[in-house]
Amino acid sequence: MVVGTEWLVEAHGCSPEALRDLGRVKRVLEDVLARLELRAVGDGLFHTFPGEGGVTAMYLLTESHLTAHTYPEHRLATFNLYCCRPRPGYPWQDALATALGAETVTVRALPRGGDPG
Amino acid sequence: MVVGTEWLVEAHGCSPEALRDLGRVKRVLEDVLARLELRAVGDGLFHTFPGEGGVTAMYLLTESHLTAHTYPEHRLATFNLYCCRPRPGYPWQDALATALGAETVTVRALPRGGDPG
Repeated sequence: MVVGTEWLVEAHGCSPEALRDLGRVKRVLEDVLARLELRAVGDGLFHTFPGEGGVTAMYLLTESHLTAHTYPEHRLATFNLYCCRPRPGYPWQDALATALGAETVTVRALPRGGDPG
Repeated sequence: MVVGTEWLVEAHGCSPEALRDLGRVKRVLEDVLARLELRAVGDGLFHTFPGEGGVTAMYLLTESHLTAHTYPEHRLATFNLYCCRPRPGYPWQDALATALGAETVTVRALPRGGDPG
């Protein structure tokens, strides 16, 4: 029984300054929520790592979860969107190029809950 | 640049009652944290769906994230563990059989942050 899809997104070549800016990363996630009409439960969880470190942001959704982790030292951001309802695609490439300066974005879409074996 | 591994775990054939019990699902995640020596940031996010629905639990980790979503109507639980440090394996099959009555457990391990292209 497939119950949803999980998108694993890697954004390479981002601006390190953008990846240290929790407000900017939160706005990316808020745009995903708004465009896909997803509903967050509560306020989310956020963490900013000290010094030159990155940020983490997570939302629990009624439809499952949305997360971001950033690695300024590698100019990398990774995202998960796990969604239990069919959704239109999100324009990851364009949105992450604009918001974070990403040069290359890869997206994997994996079914969740498929039959065993 | 690979920055971590994400394990996607599907547990089929679970007890529906166990999958509606947030305390039991939280104990599964707490066991993962303890055995793999992972550190949660804050208290996590939890949600219990009404009626015959399942539960969702998420922890933000210093090493990334750990999530669970349950679907009692399908006797299914799905887990994500995203970890930025090398970790020993977790005995998903045995642990989920004991804790949730899982009959079949499938585990996918995916690299995160790999080079584009």
